[in-house]
Order: sequence, then C-alpha cells, then structure tokens
Amino acid sequence: MPPFDVPEGDPFGPHNLPYGVFSPSGSTERRVGVRLGDHVLDAGAAASALGSPHASLLARPTLGPLLAAGRTAWSDVRRALTEWVTVPAHRPALEPLFHPLSSVTLHLPFEVADYVDFYASENHARNVGQIFRPDAEDSLTPNWKHLPIGYHGRSGTVVVSGTDVVRPSGQRKGPGDPAPVFGPSVRLDIEAEVGFVVGVPSELGRPVALGDFREHVFGLCLLNDWSARDIQAWEYVPLGPFLGKSFATSVSAWITPLDALEHARVTPPERTHPLLPYLDDSAPGIEPGGYDLRISVAINGHVVSEPPFSTMYWTAAQQLAHMTVNGASLRTGDLYGSGTVSGPEERQRGSLLELTWNGRDPLELPDGKRAFLEDGDVVTLTAWAPGADGSRVGLGEVRGRVVAG
Amino acid sequence: MPPFDVPEGDPFGPHNLPYGVFSPSGSTERRVGVRLGDHVLDAGAAASALGSPHASLLARPTLGPLLAAGRTAWSDVRRALTEWVTVPAHRPALEPLFHPLSSVTLHLPFEVADYVDFYASENHARNVGQIFRPDAEDSLTPNWKHLPIGYHGRSGTVVVSGTDVVRPSGQRKGPGDPAPVFGPSVRLDIEAEVGFVVGVPSELGRPVALGDFREHVFGLCLLNDWSARDIQAWEYVPLGPFLGKSFATSVSAWITPLDALEHARVTPPERTHPLLPYLDDSAPGIEPGGYDLRISVAINGHVVSEPPFSTMYWTAAQQLAHMTVNGASLRTGDLYGSGTVSGPEERQRGSLLELTWNGRDPLELPDGKRAFLEDGDVVTLTAWAPGADGSRVGLGEVRGRVVAG
Repeated sequence: MPPFDVPEGDPFGPHNLPYGVFSPSGSTERRVGVRLGDHVLDAGAAASALGSPHASLLARPTLGPLLAAGRTAWSDVRRALTEWVTVPAHRPALEPLFHPLSSVTLHLPFEVADYVDFYASENHARNVGQIFRPDAEDSLTPNWKHLPIGYHGRSGTVVVSGTDVVRPSGQRKGPGDPAPVFGPSVRLDIEAEVGFVVGVPSELGRPVALGDFREHVFGLCLLNDWSARDIQAWEYVPLGPFLGKSFATSVSAWITPLDALEHARVTPPERTHPLLPYLDDSAPGIEPGGYDLRISVAINGHVVSEPPFSTMYWTAAQQLAHMTVNGASLRTGDLYGSGTVSGPEERQRGSLLELTWNGRDPLELPDGKRAFLEDGDVVTLTAWAPGADGSRVGLGEVRGRVVAG
Repeated sequence: MPPFDVPEGDPFGPHNLPYGVFSPSGSTERRVGVRLGDHVLDAGAAASALGSPHASLLARPTLGPLLAAGRTAWSDVRRALTEWVTVPAHRPALEPLFHPLSSVTLHLPFEVADYVDFYASENHARNVGQIFRPDAEDSLTPNWKHLPIGYHGRSGTVVVSGTDVVRPSGQRKGPGDPAPVFGPSVRLDIEAEVGFVVGVPSELGRPVALGDFREHVFGLCLLNDWSARDIQAWEYVPLGPFLGKSFATSVSAWITPLDALEHARVTPPERTHPLLPYLDDSAPGIEPGGYDLRISVAINGHVVSEPPFSTMYWTAAQQLAHMTVNGASLRTGDLYGSGTVSGPEERQRGSLLELTWNGRDPLELPDGKRAFLEDGDVVTLTAWAPGADGSRVGLGEVRGRVVAG
C-alpha cells in the first residue's frame, strides 16, 4: 500500500507521527524518521526537499537536537510534519522518501543521559510488599504515599527494542543457603513500564515546578526494565537494586510526542494522603497528569497481561518535580521510567513476580508453564492510547528475546 | 619559578603528571593539560610543537579520546610527556606552552557516562550500621562481606572541584513527626571518596575479569559524594539513596593515571569470608588491588580527618569485576566511587555522620561547632600517595563551598 494511504483507524495515522532513528535498507547512516502506518518517512530529507527550516533539527543522526529545541519547536515541527503527510500537493516530493518499516533498521533514537526508574503503581508496590513482607502491617513503606520513590539506573545499558537480552549471572542466596552461590539468574523477570524522555535541560540548583512538565518532557516510549529477582533480592539492602537491573533496559524505537496524547490525558487516582506543595497536582492551574495508556504484555506472542497506565498513583509530572526538587539538573536525553505498571486485576500485573506470585502460580502458556522467563522467550510490550473521535494512538513496541549467557 | 624547575620533593613533579582540561587565562577554549608543579602544560600544543603523533589524542577539548585509547597508548603518552618535561633540549619549544596553575580555569576533564558509587570501607559500613541499627546483631548487612555493595548515582550532577554546592531542599521526617516536612537539608554531609575513571569500554553481555582492571581503568581522582542525611533517611527504603545524593558530586580536576601509582599499590585487608571466584583476588596472577592513598579532609582549612584508603576492604578491581559480572557494559567516561573512606581511628572517618556520631558529638572547629555543614563552609579533600624513593605523588584536590538554596 502506498505510504500516504494509511487505512482509516490505523493507530499510526497522521494523528500520531512518532519519532525514531533509522537506517535505510543497505545503509548504516542514521536518520531521523517519522512513522506513518507501516512506513517511515525520512524526516530530514523531507524537510530538505520541501525547503523547510526544520531541516536543521531533522537532518540529524539522532533526536537530540529536536529534543533540546523546546516546546515551541516541538509543536512547529509536528505541525509541519502533519501538513507534509496530509496535503496531497506534497505527495510527489515525499513519496520517494518513505521506506517500508520492514526494510529499515531502527536504532536507539537518542543518547540516554541519566536513567531513573520510579515505583509509582500502588498496585505493584502493594503486591511486592505482600510478597516480600507478608507480615508487615502495611504493604507500602511509610514514605510511599508522600513521595514518588525512585533510583538511578544504568544509562549505558539502555537498548533499543529488538536487542537480545543476555541472561545475567550473579550472586544469589536463598534463605536456606549457608553462603551465596554464583550462576545465571533463575528468576529473570520483566517490568512493563512507560519511559519519559526529557528534551529541555534545567540548571543545577533550580527545581523544575510541577507545572513546567510539558516545557521539559518531549514524549514517551515503552520500557521493559528486565529484572533478575534472585540477584536483586540478595544485593538490594541497604542501597537498592544494582546488578539485578543494570544488565539491560529495553525501550521502544518510537518516541511518541506528548502532543499526540492530548486526548489520553486523565486525572490520576484520588490521593489518599495530603501532598507537599511541590507535588500537589490538585492545585489550580495544574493540568491532569495521568495518561490513559493501554499496555499489553506478551510472551512468545501470547498476551499474559494488560496493565492500565491510568491507574498509576504518581504522575510523570510529579516524578519530574520530585527528581529535581533537590536542585538536580536535567539534561537532554534524560530518561525516566514510571515503574512497573500494574492494575488492580490479576491480569493487569506488569511483572511475572506478581503474575505468578513469586513463582507460586506459574502461568500456563501454550508452550508450557512459566514462573519466570526461559531462554528463547520473546517478551513484547505494546500499547495504545485514546485519540480524538474514537481513534487510537499506537505506541511503539518494545521487544526482546532472552538468550543464554 | 620557571615551569621546569620543580622543587625536589614536589608532589606534582615529573613522576606524577596528572591530566586535566583547562582554559588559559582570557579564553574559553578547552585543552588537555598536564600538571607539573604549579604550572599546566598545554599537552596538545606541546605534542604539535614537537611533531608528536600523540597530538591526535592530546589536542582535544576533553580527555575522552585519550581515555578510550587504551593501556598501550596511555603508557606511550606518559613516556612521551615524561621526556618532554625532563629533557632539557625541549625547554625552548615547551616553555611558552606552560601556564601558571593560578591563571587557568579547570573543567570537568571528561564527560561522565555512568556514575556508580560503592560502599567498600568496612569501618564506614560498621559505623553507619551502629549509628542507624544500634540493636542489630551485626553492624554489617549479611551481603556485605560477599560482594561490594554499589548503586548508580546521577552522572549529570558530577561537578568539578571549585563548583559551589547549593544546599538541597527536600522531604524529611523525624521519628516523632506525624508527616514529612519540606525544607533545606539540615544534615548536609560530606563523603570522602576516591573515584575511578574507566577508559576502555566493554561489550554488553561480557563481564570484565578481575585481572583486566588495568586494561579498562585509566586513573583516579578525589571525590566528595555530598549527602543530605535527612533527605536520604526518609527516602532510601526500599530502593536506595536518590535525592539525598543526586544534587551534586564533586571530583578533582586532575586525573592521576594508575601508571603514576605503581609504588602505592598494597594488598587489601585480609578477607574474613571466602570469595566467589570472580572476586577472589588471592588467586595466582592477580596483582594487589589496594592503593595506599593518604586522604585529608578539611573544613574551612581546618583538617578534621585523615582517612587511609589502604584500609578499604573491597578494591577498585573487585568493584569493576562485580559491576560487570551481570554483563553490564562499560563506556569511556564511566566513573565509580569507592564509597566513603574511613579508617579504624576516630580521626580517620570520612563523613561528618561518623565524625560527630550522627551529630551527638559536634566537631570543635576554630570558627565554632559543627554537627553537619553550614552555609559558607568550604570542604577540601586532598591526598597523596607514596612514590619511588620516598617521594610523594600528589592527587588533585576537590573543593566545594556550601551555598544556601
């Protein structure tokens, strides 16, 4: 099908236009691409062909310059792209600049500066609390309702969808083991998350206010925060997860601009505890910070869970305000994960830890039982969000295959 | 004094030659510099003036290319520099390329990729355990003697010595407070550490063996891991330190190559627990991994502590092997901190938390008592290491002034 003729209802129609970085078939050159249906438009070449001033942001090997350009530029570029792919007069010039999606190589679309991961789903935090601290009075730690708990991860091992994930080895120690043993993780897990991409930097020593979220954050992606539960359990007291997470974090190749998600905005769950002013999104003038993203988690093509992002207690805007309230600066390319997305229902849990209740209730898949991931398993996260008039905005997929170490 | 005539016994003589990045007086251009006494040699200009092939690594605005060049290149460049600053025939050509240290601006010498911080001093870990868990049977957590505990920090807020540190604000909650309160940290602390700088990257999925430490790590610096104890105490369970650390980490402007520290190598403390093979540095063929660095911590010029790095239980080589054993890859510019250096004596503790026993026993300074840092306080870490024949190898200083938020 010709690139312009995207079928009605396609989640990657002209209402979406996510950004990525691709190499055309037979080339290693990296170019900014925009997805339309099952094609990729070479955005830099398009800008040049049409004499657009946006070529300076788009004719690049990375999204970095566009990310750094700021909200006005983001809107201007999006408006131009929308015109390019919808106005028939541009067809002759642009038609040769589309590549079938199946023919291109997709790359990590920007250089990840700092990577932070949060823990923002109340259902997830309560499930984890009940699994690991069954005797605790409250399944949440005392700070959980007062601040979005987060920690820094390894930005150098953020990989693009499609990259194989080598099963990590490390130390683990069961409660009955006299000493730790070393070997490949036997409890390799997924964490279905949404990642937020910072475009505009901030100054050291200057917090970013809740209301300035959209001035800094360009868009979002899907993110799989692979986790080795056995390595993590032994290492994480007192300084948090380290090797149980740092071996790989997969992100989708397409970054959906927040401007494409205006119709997906929702009010987050009711806050059960009063919030300090810097986190209080019930204040006048603050836009609703939730996003209604419908995530799907599949193992070897079999859907095992559908976590609803709208149930997240802490929003991305609150996370940004918290992350910078101590004066920490932002850089272009900072990435932060929402934390595992789990809804209230069993089939809405975003990790195998929760889905199998720490292995007690293995999943029944067509190819056998799963407590945790086996070598060869392919995990795929997909998602969509409501658009205007009943349309759907497709988010890129994040896919990874587990391979033996 | 002319640059070549470094006094006998100067800790920055030709036996040292640390690397940095500087701008000459009146310029904003960044250049690789090598310190000799109280002068900085413009290393790129020197290489060009002498027709050296090393100009391609040295005539750069960052240490990155030199770091990435690998161990053979590091030795070759060091050998060349040693010749340049010691052979009298080079004096006429090089004399104009020296700048008085007091006239230049020093910059962060490389782009920090990932920043990891460890917790490798047994004395420090035991002190912290006794302060925060006085009723625990063992002041160390059960994993402490089996693996070097570490976590990722914020690389975007690593700043060069001399940068002011804005007192962070954040949430804190004392045991008696009904809810958290927000405000500037009232327990701002220092952590005297040594930072290790990774030069040569490694491949994702491939651990770096203990014996390959010197193939990847170029050199070391001093590091102050500023810590807001009140923010940290409220946030850190269960995922570790976040805002209590991420507001600033200061490093010295001079990176001392490991090749300058051959005479400072020592065997680390005796291991009380058997180590898994990937961490076992008693195995044949493994070089002693400790370094005898004598650190000094001063507040407003008054020395408050002299932590001995030789007492660190876990070595930098073990930390590197651990950090990558799960397959996590290294990048040029990765930086990892040793963790707070504390010796067995009271005056050898590397944090105010320990020096004042969580504020119970304030320090008596000439300008008043200190439980934690006050606005205006200037903290300076300096250090030296034994060189050949009784000489001293000076490490760069790391200095920072606390300013109100």
